[in-house]
Amino acid sequence: MVVYNPPYKDYEFLFHEVFDVVGISQSLGMEEIDSEFIQMMMEGYGEHCKEVLLPLNQIGDEEGLLFENGEVIMPSGFKEAYREGIDTGWYGAMSKPEHGGMGLPHYMGAMMNEFSIATNMSISVASGLATGVYHLISTHAEESLVDHYATNVGTKEWAGTMCLTEPHAGTDLGIIRSKALPQDDGSYLVSGTKIFISFGDHDLTKNIVHMVLAKAPDSPEGTKGISLFLVPKYLPKEWQSGGVGGLSQELSSTRNGVTCSGVEEKMGIHASPTCVLNFDNSVGWLVGDLNNGMALMFEMMNGARLDSGIMGLSLGEVAYQNSLEWVRERRQGRDLRGVQDPQEVADNILVHPDVRRMLLISKVNNEGCRALGIWVATLLDLLKSEDEKERDRATALVALLTPIVKAHFTDLGCETIDTCMQVMGGAGYCTEYGVEQFYRDVRISKIWEGTNGIQALDLAGRKITENLGRNLRYFMWPLVEFVEENRGIEGMEEFNKPLHQGAKGLQQLTLLMITEGMGNPHFLAAGATDYLRYFANIALAYMWAKMARVCLDNPDSKFHQAKLASARVFFKRIFPETISLAASIQSGHKHLMEYPAEMM
Amino acid sequence: MVVYNPPYKDYEFLFHEVFDVVGISQSLGMEEIDSEFIQMMMEGYGEHCKEVLLPLNQIGDEEGLLFENGEVIMPSGFKEAYREGIDTGWYGAMSKPEHGGMGLPHYMGAMMNEFSIATNMSISVASGLATGVYHLISTHAEESLVDHYATNVGTKEWAGTMCLTEPHAGTDLGIIRSKALPQDDGSYLVSGTKIFISFGDHDLTKNIVHMVLAKAPDSPEGTKGISLFLVPKYLPKEWQSGGVGGLSQELSSTRNGVTCSGVEEKMGIHASPTCVLNFDNSVGWLVGDLNNGMALMFEMMNGARLDSGIMGLSLGEVAYQNSLEWVRERRQGRDLRGVQDPQEVADNILVHPDVRRMLLISKVNNEGCRALGIWVATLLDLLKSEDEKERDRATALVALLTPIVKAHFTDLGCETIDTCMQVMGGAGYCTEYGVEQFYRDVRISKIWEGTNGIQALDLAGRKITENLGRNLRYFMWPLVEFVEENRGIEGMEEFNKPLHQGAKGLQQLTLLMITEGMGNPHFLAAGATDYLRYFANIALAYMWAKMARVCLDNPDSKFHQAKLASARVFFKRIFPETISLAASIQSGHKHLMEYPAEMM
Repeated sequence: MVVYNPPYKDYEFLFHEVFDVVGISQSLGMEEIDSEFIQMMMEGYGEHCKEVLLPLNQIGDEEGLLFENGEVIMPSGFKEAYREGIDTGWYGAMSKPEHGGMGLPHYMGAMMNEFSIATNMSISVASGLATGVYHLISTHAEESLVDHYATNVGTKEWAGTMCLTEPHAGTDLGIIRSKALPQDDGSYLVSGTKIFISFGDHDLTKNIVHMVLAKAPDSPEGTKGISLFLVPKYLPKEWQSGGVGGLSQELSSTRNGVTCSGVEEKMGIHASPTCVLNFDNSVGWLVGDLNNGMALMFEMMNGARLDSGIMGLSLGEVAYQNSLEWVRERRQGRDLRGVQDPQEVADNILVHPDVRRMLLISKVNNEGCRALGIWVATLLDLLKSEDEKERDRATALVALLTPIVKAHFTDLGCETIDTCMQVMGGAGYCTEYGVEQFYRDVRISKIWEGTNGIQALDLAGRKITENLGRNLRYFMWPLVEFVEENRGIEGMEEFNKPLHQGAKGLQQLTLLMITEGMGNPHFLAAGATDYLRYFANIALAYMWAKMARVCLDNPDSKFHQAKLASARVFFKRIFPETISLAASIQSGHKHLMEYPAEMM
Repeated sequence: MVVYNPPYKDYEFLFHEVFDVVGISQSLGMEEIDSEFIQMMMEGYGEHCKEVLLPLNQIGDEEGLLFENGEVIMPSGFKEAYREGIDTGWYGAMSKPEHGGMGLPHYMGAMMNEFSIATNMSISVASGLATGVYHLISTHAEESLVDHYATNVGTKEWAGTMCLTEPHAGTDLGIIRSKALPQDDGSYLVSGTKIFISFGDHDLTKNIVHMVLAKAPDSPEGTKGISLFLVPKYLPKEWQSGGVGGLSQELSSTRNGVTCSGVEEKMGIHASPTCVLNFDNSVGWLVGDLNNGMALMFEMMNGARLDSGIMGLSLGEVAYQNSLEWVRERRQGRDLRGVQDPQEVADNILVHPDVRRMLLISKVNNEGCRALGIWVATLLDLLKSEDEKERDRATALVALLTPIVKAHFTDLGCETIDTCMQVMGGAGYCTEYGVEQFYRDVRISKIWEGTNGIQALDLAGRKITENLGRNLRYFMWPLVEFVEENRGIEGMEEFNKPLHQGAKGLQQLTLLMITEGMGNPHFLAAGATDYLRYFANIALAYMWAKMARVCLDNPDSKFHQAKLASARVFFKRIFPETISLAASIQSGHKHLMEYPAEMM
């Protein structure tokens, strides 16, 4: 029943007309990348997602997971689909060539993420986690660990997890209790209980590599005493003779001391196991420096935050496509300005302004997030630039935009799917049409990888002020320059003017947050969520104005004229929320903090 | 796991300090009603809901419904619980004494609805539908039908349904195809297919009375040719000898020609069967006049719209209580202004402004809706006033406020539960804690009984202009008077001033909607949803200012001081959304209607 058409045209537009990704890749020495290559990969992966992943999505939701004798069994067809993703090379495509991958740039990764999450969010979580673990190992682990794990995880032959949360410690990782005792051979024995571990166990792969936060003896209190350990589900064959493993995939028959003691029942992503893992003197190896675990985990987390943002976009897009499909067939009532289809018993519901309002807000949310997502992805690629200034700029902008992508894309994803469900009326609420699954699945993305409230605090309390305020300057300066350049250009005023006003507002609000926040951090924290949303609107407005600028030069192209119409919907119907957000930030914290807690 | 404490104190405050419901009831000749009686009933019903309904709520969600041989079987315990609700007299309490009830006023009905929906939304739907059917029969059916059905349905011994929607006709009832052929004995043979019929079949009661919209031969086109028919699942014994039935509950063994051919799989309310019903020459009787079915169905629908609004409040309240319970036990991080509980490993999360922001917005949404809901309920009672002016006023205000209660309470309910889930992080997403069920269950309330978009069109396109604009004047005049009275009263300015500004804004926006809407109805329809939300904020602001006025006189009461603090949260943190809503309404319709449809 569920339809999905990967938004190729939109990506072509963003890649080549808005961001010149080929130029970026070539500046980074990736000379094999041209527009034909990108097109081929895009369509190839789109087909894989449509043909292999999409048909399993509702099956996964309905069947859910089996948990028997401490082992998680995936729904029908998932193992075979995952195998196909590995064998075709798609799942490993982001890894380096020396680890069995193609070293694709991040903008292609972001696009591929959108397609796979839209068609099967659960299975995409498995692959995404392994990508993150691969990155940590290949970047920070010592050579013997790289030898044994990088290729196995990079190709996705083996899976991976992030083990952070404990029953009493979610957001506050400084109070975790898991311990790691050093052994004479350089390994550690890791013990503790971790909860909410996505893909903590499953049968998709032969081995699972857990990245576990734990405390070594005599380490400092709080987050400064946390280290990162690699703990495999099955130990390598070489381990019996004292090594950490070699290049082989061979596993000893020794199960490591990590067991899955439970799988959560939850609202959505029924094919993504959420496990309780018990580590009981499990053999692990330190990754990176002792007591530097938080920094490393944040590297992985930042990738996961961008992926989570893409989840909001992905499910928003597939929900939009399905509600539009439904709308095109649905006739109810008549156009208020006069009957459109007299030969039919009623007009198509696209004649109703409120139906259009709902659909177009959804569409424009998706298009705006896609543009901003690709911008951030190109910045991730530019982290590898040889030009130091370019690297600095990219570093600053990625730091600034990561919490925005994570929080705002997932907030918008939830809102978009809610709206698409509403367009469909009762059908939207019924399982048959698929949208209700997206509604349930997407909801986790606002929670995990740091709740959206934590993202807001990260932005307002850290990213704005760190780096001597440079993060923000790297954002504002080119934006102000863009506004100046486009002043007076015919057709740009309707986009440029609100962008200019919004940017001025952002500067004022930032100043308010910093100055008031110095006197009372409660002021800053009380306004953080609204501030992030305000900021996100400015970033989206910047994207929309940039896109509009390109489209004005293409007056005869239907695609470009529709994109201009989308920009209008953004500025007329979505962007005005910034006015209220500013008022809410200014209202401060007193009404919240002075509320008598015992009367809540 | 799920906790629920009926909000008795809030109802005592609203009943006796804000609205003087005893005075209203006594003015209507209901002299037996005093505050002790109300208290006794409130606590008695609260206990029933906590003890009988709440324990079944998660069971109903997990077990769901069985559909076997065309019959729906309810989850374990539901039949017994419903029986207890009937036998104790609670479920029939709203019916007239001559039909086995107590004739309780609407404000008590609204309160009771909140308790039962909060503890078990699914079972409450069954009871609520029967209340609506009872109302239609007792008010509009001919005597012989009243004799046979009013008491049986009024006591809830028999259940009821509303049969409107058909596969091709949801919002647009003018195009239904169900037919009713008149028979010589005065009955009709009704045929057609109805979908999305809540409690279309079940085993809670011996009989089910369907209220069916169908068209008699040669009736006018569209909604003007629709009539309402009473079609029982089982025919009365007397039917075999040519009558419609008597006072008895005796049923003939004859199953009427109505069968359930399917039950929808849906996201929530798993214990509320959503049926496809096939009427195949089923015996029915006309209720009210021929071709007057829409008017009657709207009477029932308006009741159902208010009930739906209460669903948003109810589930919002129980979600709030459960997330607060969770928060009180949760320690993460430290107060940004300094450690609060040095003896603990972390502070309670109520020290974090963003957590308070989320919880307090939720709490204040619930409190505001409760106040507005009780105001509307007293107006429903006043429809029976002997004073014609009072009746006129009540009629006008009920017409105006019904779409607002339906749409805004359900919108806020969804938002509140979303926020409460967010406060709980991963736990909110897990089934164990109950909040995810509320998230799924509440979502239908924005869709059924006319989607919220339809409510907005009803308000903006009909309720504002009908009755020569009197509906709005009955709302605005006392509001403006209230603002004048409270000008200069110490402590009122922070509430009175924004209320005044908001009311002026409402007048301007209404004028804009009407004048622009005359030229182009698309303008009005494009702004309707935002206009309803703006209006709802003014109505809530009015309630909050009224409540604040009462509380200022009670400086030593913790309850009243907390309520004042709630009023502050409303005006500081929620009410500012009106600024953006106004901008969105003013942005008009062109960006929506000129969007090329083929490019959506």
